[in-house]
Amino acid sequence: MDEQELKQGITKAVEDVRKTKPMAPSITNTVTVNFVANAQLAVGGAAAMVYLADEAEAIASISQSFYVNLGTMFDFYMDTLEPLSDYLHENNHKWVLDPVAAGLGQMRSQAIDYFKDKTPTIIRANATEILTIAEMWGLASNSKTKIRGVEAEDEVEEAKDAAIAIASYTGGVVAVSGKVDLITDGKVIVHSYGGSEMMENITGAGCSLAGVCAIYECVTDSLTAAVTASQIYNLAGKIASKKANGPGSFESEFLDCLYNLSSEDIANNKFEIEELDV
Amino acid sequence: MDEQELKQGITKAVEDVRKTKPMAPSITNTVTVNFVANAQLAVGGAAAMVYLADEAEAIASISQSFYVNLGTMFDFYMDTLEPLSDYLHENNHKWVLDPVAAGLGQMRSQAIDYFKDKTPTIIRANATEILTIAEMWGLASNSKTKIRGVEAEDEVEEAKDAAIAIASYTGGVVAVSGKVDLITDGKVIVHSYGGSEMMENITGAGCSLAGVCAIYECVTDSLTAAVTASQIYNLAGKIASKKANGPGSFESEFLDCLYNLSSEDIANNKFEIEELDV
Amino acid sequence: MDEQELKQGITKAVEDVRKTKPMAPSITNTVTVNFVANAQLAVGGAAAMVYLADEAEAIASISQSFYVNLGTMFDFYMDTLEPLSDYLHENNHKWVLDPVAAGLGQMRSQAIDYFKDKTPTIIRANATEILTIAEMWGLASNSKTKIRGVEAEDEVEEAKDAAIAIASYTGGVVAVSGKVDLITDGKVIVHSYGGSEMMENITGAGCSLAGVCAIYECVTDSLTAAVTASQIYNLAGKIASKKANGPGSFESEFLDCLYNLSSEDIANNKFEIEELDV
Repeated sequence: MDEQELKQGITKAVEDVRKTKPMAPSITNTVTVNFVANAQLAVGGAAAMVYLADEAEAIASISQSFYVNLGTMFDFYMDTLEPLSDYLHENNHKWVLDPVAAGLGQMRSQAIDYFKDKTPTIIRANATEILTIAEMWGLASNSKTKIRGVEAEDEVEEAKDAAIAIASYTGGVVAVSGKVDLITDGKVIVHSYGGSEMMENITGAGCSLAGVCAIYECVTDSLTAAVTASQIYNLAGKIASKKANGPGSFESEFLDCLYNLSSEDIANNKFEIEELDV
Repeated sequence: MDEQELKQGITKAVEDVRKTKPMAPSITNTVTVNFVANAQLAVGGAAAMVYLADEAEAIASISQSFYVNLGTMFDFYMDTLEPLSDYLHENNHKWVLDPVAAGLGQMRSQAIDYFKDKTPTIIRANATEILTIAEMWGLASNSKTKIRGVEAEDEVEEAKDAAIAIASYTGGVVAVSGKVDLITDGKVIVHSYGGSEMMENITGAGCSLAGVCAIYECVTDSLTAAVTASQIYNLAGKIASKKANGPGSFESEFLDCLYNLSSEDIANNKFEIEELDV
Repeated sequence: MDEQELKQGITKAVEDVRKTKPMAPSITNTVTVNFVANAQLAVGGAAAMVYLADEAEAIASISQSFYVNLGTMFDFYMDTLEPLSDYLHENNHKWVLDPVAAGLGQMRSQAIDYFKDKTPTIIRANATEILTIAEMWGLASNSKTKIRGVEAEDEVEEAKDAAIAIASYTGGVVAVSGKVDLITDGKVIVHSYGGSEMMENITGAGCSLAGVCAIYECVTDSLTAAVTASQIYNLAGKIASKKANGPGSFESEFLDCLYNLSSEDIANNKFEIEELDV
């Protein structure tokens, strides 16, 4: 895949979502669930959030990609996450994992362990979470073993090797969010530029980016989907931050940008693609 | 009830809510719960959300109408919904049901079955959900038996007979939301016009409309309440969409409109009333 | 502590939070959880919401203050609240309690009973909730024993004696929110002025104020923290209400103000400090 092909893929993904309004269901945290749904709608998709196992499977069966976010876990989550991830894996169903706060608490670790063989097609996280997963899955050693919260404590490039290792293991895509986003399928690395520091001043930029990955994954391959999501987020973040006076107006401007940006501008937002020696 | 009487009823309902600030408690989904509360406050009412049975009954006892929304069900929901709906029914307490995603999952079906004899005074839903409930309650046959998500797949008018059948059965009101809203008590049909396609680009327009029905039901009869809610939503949606640049600014403008629109403008928003031959 | 010292403390707290971005974790209700997180971020802090006991303790251990809000309790809440409050108490860890709807439901009363000896360092509530807690903890008699919702039914000054009694008992701070906020540590009383009626037209002003108390408590003593939070809220509310056209735009303007107001303006917002005869 070269730059021109990827640009065409991005353009097409943006337009196909706006034309076909694909629905990607989610199990996601209570903090940002509204923003995830609104971001999915703003890019042209549809949202459906659930918590229970049977409805998760039923709604997965009428979708092309499912989004699982590990924030604010409830006591009954494993009753849903185990059969759901079994279902997704057994049916070769695309799914996006956002391992929020990976390493915090017993149930979250149990879930991440369980997901190791369930082939998430996109893992979208910050650098610290990617390093933690690589360590938990035995794919890299992470010397830092302290308790972690939800904020990234590492730079994106520090997680590059871990991201490649995870993508090579799952056969899917890993997207590391930060100042410059890094997306890899283990064969190429894409860097997507732009965004704004203002995105750290609202809650849910990362969660909703992952939800939008799932929307694009309904209409294209996982690598193009993750890159398209980063591209629209980076461009929308950059433009919205110029129009906004603070985080309140930023969130509103950001959603308006997701809705309005042209497919060409999204494809032409700065990115770089690099082949890996594998 | 003729058009002039209904206009007077709408005007009075809008003003009485703004004067008396009635509280309508809710059990509602995590996706749109914030928007439901903010919409209830914006029209002049008050909100109180709960999940547990004893507090649901206690807070119902100091309210005039209760709102039950079946989105994002938790594992313990039946422990609340069964005793609560018993309480509401036995006390002739008004309550609004929003059967989000009716037909999806076992617990949701169990709840809807249970509610059949619990006389919700308003059922507010999209056309697909109304058709599903009519079928589940044996009031109409719905030939489409596939799994459904949260989006309407049918036009409002396709659900007209089902809405009338349900309203005749419950003795309450059924409100079908869509391009043109249809509200019926089994004796008359009201169509309320306006709104905007932008309402489909944010999450929670339907959920919050039902929450606002409950607010108006605190001060007037269920038919006038449901029509008033549709009228304010249709007018606010129309005006807000003209001021907005996208879904982010639309949500903000929409809440401002709910707060600011005059009772006269709300009553004079286009609607039609039609007597049914019964 | 005199007025000048308190002003210096406020200025320093605002600036230290913006410099060090402290994270205060929360267990909080689903209605306003997004607004709590966004307010905490807007003042310069960081947010992390959890529900489960082991992760609550783990994330508490890397924070300076924890926020517990009793809105929308889930069935499993006591399994978290008991060990967490034990942990906070035993470790002399600062924590903010918002006893939303105190007096409603059995589990909430059980939690408040349990917290009596767990030394919350700040209790932030409306007047009705403060009167209820004083009664439940045997610190004052509240003649009004009817069921209560989430809205204040009493004026701030009516809760003055109860607030002092609670603060004297816990050794912490009690902040009563209303038209004029009252903050006391049992030795002094601070009144903070400003705000706007518009703050009652959005959901979560109180919840998020308490969340912001926890952020400031990460960098200063509990009294200064609670006063700083009231000061920034009162000034932001006053300014945002002038810019806003309704509750939708108010929420956005309010978050922008939290982000932009200068530490000097926040310190110079009108307040009064009064020594108590103890």
